[in-house]
Amino acid sequence: MTTGQHAHSQEVVIAIDAMGGDHGPHVTVPAAVRILKENPNLNIILVGLTASVEAELKALHITPHPRLRVQHASEVVLMDESPQSAMKNKKDSSMRVAINMVKTGEAQACVSAGNTGALMATARFVLKTLPGIDRPAIASTLPSEKGSTFMLDLGANADCTPEHLYQFAIMGAMVVSCISNKPNPTVGLLNIGSEDIKGNEVAKQAAELLRGSHLNFYGNVEGDDIFKGTTDVVVCDGFVGNVALKTTEGLAHMMGKFLTQEFKRNWLTKLMALGAFPVLKAFKKRLDPRRYNGASFLGLRGIVVKSHGGADSIGFYHAIHVAMEEAQSGVLKRIQAQLEIEHLTSSEQS
Amino acid sequence: MTTGQHAHSQEVVIAIDAMGGDHGPHVTVPAAVRILKENPNLNIILVGLTASVEAELKALHITPHPRLRVQHASEVVLMDESPQSAMKNKKDSSMRVAINMVKTGEAQACVSAGNTGALMATARFVLKTLPGIDRPAIASTLPSEKGSTFMLDLGANADCTPEHLYQFAIMGAMVVSCISNKPNPTVGLLNIGSEDIKGNEVAKQAAELLRGSHLNFYGNVEGDDIFKGTTDVVVCDGFVGNVALKTTEGLAHMMGKFLTQEFKRNWLTKLMALGAFPVLKAFKKRLDPRRYNGASFLGLRGIVVKSHGGADSIGFYHAIHVAMEEAQSGVLKRIQAQLEIEHLTSSEQS
Repeated sequence: MTTGQHAHSQEVVIAIDAMGGDHGPHVTVPAAVRILKENPNLNIILVGLTASVEAELKALHITPHPRLRVQHASEVVLMDESPQSAMKNKKDSSMRVAINMVKTGEAQACVSAGNTGALMATARFVLKTLPGIDRPAIASTLPSEKGSTFMLDLGANADCTPEHLYQFAIMGAMVVSCISNKPNPTVGLLNIGSEDIKGNEVAKQAAELLRGSHLNFYGNVEGDDIFKGTTDVVVCDGFVGNVALKTTEGLAHMMGKFLTQEFKRNWLTKLMALGAFPVLKAFKKRLDPRRYNGASFLGLRGIVVKSHGGADSIGFYHAIHVAMEEAQSGVLKRIQAQLEIEHLTSSEQS
Repeated sequence: MTTGQHAHSQEVVIAIDAMGGDHGPHVTVPAAVRILKENPNLNIILVGLTASVEAELKALHITPHPRLRVQHASEVVLMDESPQSAMKNKKDSSMRVAINMVKTGEAQACVSAGNTGALMATARFVLKTLPGIDRPAIASTLPSEKGSTFMLDLGANADCTPEHLYQFAIMGAMVVSCISNKPNPTVGLLNIGSEDIKGNEVAKQAAELLRGSHLNFYGNVEGDDIFKGTTDVVVCDGFVGNVALKTTEGLAHMMGKFLTQEFKRNWLTKLMALGAFPVLKAFKKRLDPRRYNGASFLGLRGIVVKSHGGADSIGFYHAIHVAMEEAQSGVLKRIQAQLEIEHLTSSEQS
C-alpha cells in the first residue's frame, strides 16, 4: 500500500459527489474505496444521501476508515436537469456540497459524474474563475502513438476569442508540466492545412498570441496530429474539440462493430476469433476509454473533475486519479504563476 | 462489359488531369483504362504531356480506343505550388486544360489528384459558382454503420455564415438524392450537445434556416453521428469538417498501428495473427480509404472531383467513379432546381 508513491505525493482531501452519474453510489463508492487503499496520503469525503452511501460501504464490508468520511447532502441533481434548475432548486445537492468543500478548503479537489452543464455552471458560480482566465475549459488526456495528448477545450465554450485559446494553452501546458515528466511541454494549435486557406480568423490571431508567449509553442497542428502525438498539448475551441472527440468515439465504435461482424461471419472466422482473442483483448485494453476517463474543468479557483456519466467503477477510479494528481502536484498554483509570467493577471485583462 | 449499368447511365465525357497527384500518369492512366472498360457509355480525355501519357498507355498495351483520347497540355501544376502561381504561370497546365473542357462543355466533369488549393482556385476562377451559391464546398462520402454518410464542407471554407451552411445542405442533399436510392435524404447539422450550450451562433442560425427550408432537416447531430449514420448528409463549416476528417484518419492510423504491435508482440501472437489474417484482411478492405476516395467540389458550374494526391490507381479509379456518377445522374441540374425551390437564386441573394 505504500509502494510506488511519487515524490510529490502529499496529503490531500478529495470530495466525491457520490450520487452523480448513471449509477450513483454503486459505482462511486467502490472506486473511492479502491483508490483510498492504494494511496496512503489520500483522504476522501463521500458526499450524498448518508443512507445510500453507507449501505454501499456496508455491502463492501468497509468498517470505519480513518481517511474516509461521509458528508450528508439531502438532494441529488438529475442527469437531465437543467443547470438553472440545479443551481436554483438544489442548494443541498451532493454536487453542490462537494464543490462547496473545495471553496472552503476542506477539500483540494472534487469529482462528479453528474450532468456536465449543471456541474460546470455550479462550479463556476461557487468557485469563480482564476484571475486572468475569462472562461473555464474542459480538458482531457487522449491516447496517442507516442503516449498521450492533453486536449482542450472539449466543449465548454462553443465560441472562443484568440485570448481564450491563449489562456487554454497556458492551462493545458501547466497541467502537463505538473503531472508528466515534461517540464516544458509543446503546445499545438488545432487548425486546417489546406494549401490555400490556413484556418479561420480566430486561429490565426491565437497563433500570433502564442508565438509571442513564454510557452513552448509548436505551431499549427491538424486533426491527425492529436493521435500521432505531435505535441503534448492541443488547443482548440470547444465546438471543434467536442466534434473531434465525439467523431473519434463514433469511429472507434464503428471499427469495433465491423471487426466483431467480420469475426462472427461464419464458424471458421469464429474459430479465428477464438485464436486471436488474447491479442484482441490486449488491443482493446490499450485503448480502453475507462483509462482516459476524467475531464478537468480548468480555469476555476479549485480543482473539479468530471467523470463520464456512464462510467463504471474502474472508469470513475481513473477520474478520481486525475483529481488526485492535480491536487498533489499543485496545478492551480502553477497555472496562476504562468498567468503572471504571461502578464495576464493585470487588471485590464480581467 | 455491359452488365450492371444503371438506368440513368448515359453517355458522358470526363476530362482527367493525367499529370496530377504524387504519381501522375502511372496512376491516372491505368485507373482511366479500367473504368473505361467497365462503362460502355463513358468517354475519357486524358489531359497532360502527350509523350508521358502515351508511354503509359503503351506500357498497358492499349491500342487506339474509340472512347479514349489524349489532349496535350504543356505544363504541370506542382503539388506544393501556390494557387496564385498555378493560376498566373500555368495557363496550359493539365489541371487548367481539364477544367476548361468542362467550361466549354467538351467534358461533363473533370478529375484531378493535383494540389487542392490550386484546383479549387482554378476551378472557381474558370467555372464560377452557381447562381445562389456564395462559395464552393468540398464534399465526400464516408463509411458509416448504416452504409455511408455524405459530409461537407471538408475544408474549403474555414469561416462560414449560416447562409453558407444552408447552401451546403442543399447541395449535399441533392447529390445524395441523385446518386443513392434516397429521394429525400435526411440532413443533419453538426453541432455539440453539451447540456448547457447548444452550439455556436452560426450553427444556431443555420438550424433556423434549415428548419424553414424544403429539405428533410433532421436537426442537430454530433460528431459520433457521422459514423453511426444518423443522417444521410452532415453539414458543417470547413474548419470543423477538416478537423473531424483528419482526426478520424489519425485515430484509424493509431488503431491500426496498435493492432499490428499487439499481433507482433511474440511468436505466439504472430501465430494468432496468421490465423486471424483473412478476417483482418476483410475488415481492412471494408474500411479501405481508397473506396472512399474522390471529393466533390460542389457549387461550381461544372463537376470537379479531387482525388487524394497520394492515391494509387484503385483510389483514383474511385475518384473517377464519383465524377461519372455525378455527371450521369444530373447532379448540377438537380442542385439548381432545388436552389430555385428554396428561393436562393433571386438577384438579392447573389
